[in-house]
Formats: sequence, C-alpha cells, structure tokens
Amino acid sequence: MTVVPADLDAYLGAHDARITQELFDFLRIPSVSARSEHDVDTAHAAEWTAASLRAAGLEATVHQTAGHPVVVGEWRGAPAGAQTVLVYGHYDVQPAEPLELWTSPAFEPTVRDGRLYARGSVDDKGQLFLHIKALEAHLAVRGKLPCNVIVLAEGEEEVGSAHLAPFIEANAQRLACDAVVISDSAMFAPGLPSILSSLRGLAYFEINVQGPAQDLHSGSYGGAIVNPAMALARILSTFHDASGKIAIPGFYDAVAEWPAHVRTQMKSLPFDDEHFRAEAGSPALGGESGYTVLERLWTRPTCEVNGLLSGYTGEGAKTVLPARAMAKVSCRLVPDQDPAEIERLMKAHVANVAPAGVTATVTHLHGGRPWRAELNGPLFDAARRALAAAFGTEPVITGEGGSIPVVGDFARILHAPVLLVGFGLPGENAHAPDEWMSMENFTTGMRAIATLWDELGVQTP
Amino acid sequence: MTVVPADLDAYLGAHDARITQELFDFLRIPSVSARSEHDVDTAHAAEWTAASLRAAGLEATVHQTAGHPVVVGEWRGAPAGAQTVLVYGHYDVQPAEPLELWTSPAFEPTVRDGRLYARGSVDDKGQLFLHIKALEAHLAVRGKLPCNVIVLAEGEEEVGSAHLAPFIEANAQRLACDAVVISDSAMFAPGLPSILSSLRGLAYFEINVQGPAQDLHSGSYGGAIVNPAMALARILSTFHDASGKIAIPGFYDAVAEWPAHVRTQMKSLPFDDEHFRAEAGSPALGGESGYTVLERLWTRPTCEVNGLLSGYTGEGAKTVLPARAMAKVSCRLVPDQDPAEIERLMKAHVANVAPAGVTATVTHLHGGRPWRAELNGPLFDAARRALAAAFGTEPVITGEGGSIPVVGDFARILHAPVLLVGFGLPGENAHAPDEWMSMENFTTGMRAIATLWDELGVQTP
Repeated sequence: MTVVPADLDAYLGAHDARITQELFDFLRIPSVSARSEHDVDTAHAAEWTAASLRAAGLEATVHQTAGHPVVVGEWRGAPAGAQTVLVYGHYDVQPAEPLELWTSPAFEPTVRDGRLYARGSVDDKGQLFLHIKALEAHLAVRGKLPCNVIVLAEGEEEVGSAHLAPFIEANAQRLACDAVVISDSAMFAPGLPSILSSLRGLAYFEINVQGPAQDLHSGSYGGAIVNPAMALARILSTFHDASGKIAIPGFYDAVAEWPAHVRTQMKSLPFDDEHFRAEAGSPALGGESGYTVLERLWTRPTCEVNGLLSGYTGEGAKTVLPARAMAKVSCRLVPDQDPAEIERLMKAHVANVAPAGVTATVTHLHGGRPWRAELNGPLFDAARRALAAAFGTEPVITGEGGSIPVVGDFARILHAPVLLVGFGLPGENAHAPDEWMSMENFTTGMRAIATLWDELGVQTP
Repeated sequence: MTVVPADLDAYLGAHDARITQELFDFLRIPSVSARSEHDVDTAHAAEWTAASLRAAGLEATVHQTAGHPVVVGEWRGAPAGAQTVLVYGHYDVQPAEPLELWTSPAFEPTVRDGRLYARGSVDDKGQLFLHIKALEAHLAVRGKLPCNVIVLAEGEEEVGSAHLAPFIEANAQRLACDAVVISDSAMFAPGLPSILSSLRGLAYFEINVQGPAQDLHSGSYGGAIVNPAMALARILSTFHDASGKIAIPGFYDAVAEWPAHVRTQMKSLPFDDEHFRAEAGSPALGGESGYTVLERLWTRPTCEVNGLLSGYTGEGAKTVLPARAMAKVSCRLVPDQDPAEIERLMKAHVANVAPAGVTATVTHLHGGRPWRAELNGPLFDAARRALAAAFGTEPVITGEGGSIPVVGDFARILHAPVLLVGFGLPGENAHAPDEWMSMENFTTGMRAIATLWDELGVQTP
C-alpha cells in the first residue's frame, strides 16, 4: 500500500512554520482581478508566485497579456522519456466586498478553529501554493522529480480567463504535457478525498420578445394587442414538461449514459436531501423525476431562468402594456452535449412556440462544453493511491454542477487528460465573506500532492 | 329639431377673443399635481378656477385637503323643483417632461393648424373651462339657468384623486344632485360627437414567487431546486387558454351581456384594424376570439402582465438561480365584475397552479369597479340633442378601455347618473409631449354644453 514518503513528510513537517508564513504573505496581496485599482497588487501576486516557484527550484517567467500576467514555472530535469505534467492554478481572487461581513479582515489571514480565513485561502492561492511546496519538498530533499513539471498560474480566473486559452494556444509546444493537474475544487466532505469526474457545460441565452413599438396604456390597448411579457411567460412554460424533463425537442439526444459503477458510487455518497434543501432555504426540492439530487446536479442538464425584466417593476401599480420582455435563460450541459447544437435547438423551439403578434429573438451570450474525466488509466490510479495514502481513506468520485471552462481548453488544446483534485470543503465561502480553507486539508493536501509525484513517476516507462 | 340657442351662440362669438385669452392664462399655470415644487402653481390654479367661476356668476369656494384643494362653484337660483346638475373637472395636469420633445413650450399655449398645444389643453383644463364659459353665457345673457349648478374641480386627478372621494362623502348633502356631467374624454373621430357608454374597472395585483432563501449558483444548485422565475412563467401561462380567453375559473361569471343595439352601433363605427395595429407598432393584433377590436377594448375583460422582475437583468450573463420572481398583473374589468371577487378568484387560481417548491403570494394593489352608463332616460336624451345641435350630426356611443375611478365614486356616493361627454380627439397626446386640443372642438363643445343646459331644463318637471 502506498504511503506518504517519509523524507518528504519530514521536510514538510520541519518547514511547517515557514510554509505557513509564506502562505500568509501570499494571501495578504489583494490580487483582485476584477478591480483595476488592484492591478498593481495583481501584478505583485504574479511576481510573488514566480519568486516562490524559483525558491522551490523551478525556473519561472512572468508573461504579460492584454489582461493580467500568466506565470510559467518549469522543471525539466527528468530522465529522457519521462512524462511531463502541468499543474494549473490561479493567483487572482474574487473581490472581498461586502467587507463588513468579514469576521477578520479579508486580506489579513487569521486561523480560527483550524480554519484559515482569508480571501483566496481556498480559491485558489492556498491550493496553488500547496502544489509549489510539494514540488519544493521533492527538489529540496532529492534534488529531482520523477517527471518534468510545468506550473501555469493565471491571474484572470475570477474574471473569465479571457487571455488564458490564447496564451496556451500560442505556447502549445512549450506547454505540451501528458497530464494536467488542477486543485481548485472541494472535497465532498471532511476526511473524504475526492476526484472530480465531470463538469457541466453551459449555453447561456437572452430571449427578447418585442410586442408593440413602445409601451402602451393597458386600458386603451389591453385586450387587442399581444402582451410580450405574457408571450414570454408562455414561451418559458414550454421549456419543461410536467415531470421536470426539458421539453425542447432534441435536447437530450447527445446526453451520454453514465457508467453504472459511477452512478452506484454517487448514490453511496453521504448526502442528506433535507440538509441540502434547508441550506438552500427552498420550500421543497424539485427537478427531473427518476434521478437523485446529486445525479440531477452532476449528471443531468438543466434549463433555468436566470433573469426576467419587462415593463414596470417599481413600487405600486402602473397600468402599462410593455413593449418588450426579456429573459436570461441558461442551460447546464452534460457530456456530450454541444453548446452550438443546443443553441440551434433553442432557437428552433422558441421560433416554433412564439405566438403571433410578437417577435421573439434568441441570442447566445456564451457557452462552454461539458467535461468528463477518464476514470481509469495511470493518471487516475496515481491520484487514487496518493490521496488514499495522505488521507487514510480511498477517494470518492464526485461531480460538479458548475463549469470550469479552462478544463475544456486544456483538453482541447493540449490533448492531455485532466485530473481535478481539490482540497476545499463544503461551506468554504469561496466567493463570499469569510472564505476559509481547512488547515488540515492544506497540510494533508500538500502531502497528497507530494506523494502524487512519486506515483506519477511509477507510471513512467 | 334642437339648435344652439342664438343668444348664447352670439354671446360666445362676441367674447371669443377674451375667452381664448383667459384659456391661455389658465394653461400658463404649471399646475403639475405630481411635483411638490409646483404646489404653489397648483394652489394658484385652484384660486384661478374659483375666480373664473365667480366671474361667470357662480359662488365659489376653495377647500383645502390633505393634498391639493377642491374648488366648488355653485349657482342655486333655479325654480323650486328644478334639477341640480354637478359638473366635474380637474385643474391639475400631468408633468410636461420630457420637455425637449415639445415643439412649443408646454406652458406657453400655441395654436398651430387649428390645434391648441399646451399641457392641460385637453386634459382637462380646456374641457373644464368650456363648461365655465357655457355657464357664463347663460348667466350673462339670461341672468339664470334652468337647473341648479354645482361645479366641482379637483387638483389631484393626475395623481389618483386620493382626497376627492372623502371630500364628496364629507359634503354629500351639499353636493347632492340629479346628474353628473364630465368632459374629460375624447370624441371617436373628428366631427363625431361621442357619449361614453362604459369604462373598464381594474384589479391590479403583484404576484411574488419565492424559491430559495437567497440567490444560488445555478451550477451548484440548478436542476434540484425549483426555479421561481420558471415557476412564475408557468403560473402566468395558465391565465389564458389557446383562444385568448382568460382561463381563471369563474372569471367571466359576472360579465354582463351588452345590448344588441349597442354592439351593432359599435360595429358600425369607422375603425380600421390595420391603422390601429400600425399605430401601436405591433407585429399583429391579438386577443379574445369572437370579438372585434373595439369590443375587445371596451366590452371584454383582460388579464395583462404589466411588469416582470427576477434575478439578473443587466448586460451579459450571470449564472444565478434567483431567489424570487415578481410579476405585476392587472385585469381590466367590465360590468358587472367586482374587483374583490376577481381578487378572490385570482388568489384561488394561483394557489391552485403554483408548483411545489416555491411559495406564491398574490397581493391586490388596487382596484376599481367598471361602470356602464344609462343609455336612455332624460340625461342621455338631452345630451344627444345638444351634441347633435352643436356638431350637426347625431352622437355615437363609444366605450373606453381605461378606468376613471371618480366616475364610480360619483355613482356610489351621490347615487346620480353620470354623463361622460368629451371633446378631445384621437392622438391628442393627453399624457405625452405636444398635448393639444382642437380649437374647433373647444368652441363647438362650448356651444354643445351651453345647449345642454337648456335641454336639461326641458326635463325639469
């Protein structure tokens, strides 16, 4: 059975206080990518990341983009024929506002009850940093790694990663690799190491229904003019059938079946529907019949209204017959649905059900493909062994209802399998006040990743 | 055949220039009831109205209310047993904004092509003033009127008439009358004098659908939580059937049938569906099958969405599963529908169709009863003769899709029949820039009303 290598464990233990202080220094940089007044901090965080990579024994360069810089760290000393593994993370953070809801200041790291509170603690500075320290341990103790390593750290993950895919494309040869490892997600529960099996994709639409040329008096015109807000409601009401299934013709055609053993494993996860319902504050759960809550979240597509706007929305009454009505509607997609095909189906369906007397237009605002991991093979097996060694229990396979577009970019541009193994926890407030990371997950995760490099080395021919 | 009495016609002709100048003076007062910075102007307009009534030979008093003043003019010199007729109008006006869209300044009366342009020209200062001048003609030429007269002019019609019904109730004895005459509406077409046969009532609701306790991430929760915006759309989609009929159970139970001769007369009115559609700028007309456009507007109830709001409505995409969704929904009511009963039916229907997983609440914001005129009897006959005499053609019977709540108040509190005879015209921009009144309608309308007093006198026992 795999164990955490004693030499690496000893190194990380001996340097624990310094590592923690360095992490605190990293978290003190308010690298808020969304706010231009923090551009100097974001640039500082990029330089800090490069310096930390160099201190760990890698070569590191900072690359300017039209947005925030991309940091590339490299160690290419592995024997001929060894694998190359790319680690991705991001050094930018979400805005900290509303500041008054933080128990301790967002950019002053504070440990309470084993949790490290700070903006970026778990998303993603803490997780990026534990990768750097795992590499440092290998290079400090042994002077080498069993694989070539590339660390790619971007500063625009929280604002859409607009310049990352172009950077990868422009540097595809330099970034060529056999596997990608990303730690920017959460474990299913404390003590339960997790490997992400899938991400949902997205097709986000705006539907505009135009009726009369201008707002009309509902008394003078009401009853003889088609009301665009009512027409929009009727259009939206056709998107699902009574069982909660999406009723847009062809919508499920590309949905792949999940392997029985993954569905079985998902059903075995410790999940309490009532707890989930209460946490959401929803009167009752809903969704597509025939699936558990986790299957609905991870393995089934959705069609949701994200916004509605029409006519008068202020206090009290205004008797207006609105000229137009707008809905934001997005579909979460699952393998192997294609956003472009969903756009085609959505447009055809809306054109088919829109009543006469209004003009309905569908605009595709943006999309992203769903992703599914390879749940076997050397990368998956190495991760399974490393996580089991560090956490003392076999990892579980989880899904993710959200989207991480960059994962699809790595798969598409670099043609490499991606391993998503994260050390956050439920309730970590990743985009909210009082973001935290479990200190135990940080230290155990660092050891799991240190172990992973040895296990990846085992695969080397 | 009735003709405009020669003595009154001669008086109005001789004083035409002065009357026009006085009307201009009235229109120059920016008595915008909605804007507190115009309170001094609104008060000025009340005093001006009272002075004008006194100059015409009536006694006049200005009554303060919690809002803008009510002006009461009285002439009670009719023989014992004569009828008492109350004339209602309003001296307040809509805001003039957007000012840049006026061809000439809103409060500088300007005549172009036979149209008098000014805020309040037709709504309602011009129409109130022609009543005062008709009374002046009688009292100046003959020293008397065949009926006792009450003129009631309020200053809050454009802001909901909040203090008028309480004033009428508190002064019901003084305001007791046999008939109410109101000129605050339009003729169906130029040269076609019109008597309004009906007004629609209103039941205005806000529907709130609450899902989760707070906005959720549509990736993390989408598919397992009932989306309140989608639930709202499904609720709204049940309000009509495929034929455009309102599908709320019981909704039509109280709808009265219209007399065949009124429907026949409405069908004979010169009305061009295509012109109406083009004016509204709507791709196609719609509504309840089996009825003409005018019947849909005047004789059939509606259920309209006036506003929608939920989730994210800004530019671009935000993947939010909204916590709540709101719709403003109002029903135009026809005789003999009761807003309180419609409220009961609406609440029962929404409770019945709202899906599990959300909480839907219906709030009744305000309501008004529909109204239908007596289309026979001495008041109607006198008006018919007076209009025919002044305009040279028989008046037509029209309906009105909107609501004038004060009409119901008069009927309810004073138990008097109401005559709605107005001299506006289609396209008069009553609440828009470049409001205008036809100068010809002003002078002919003044003569029609002068004739009406004689015709009402004929009815006096």
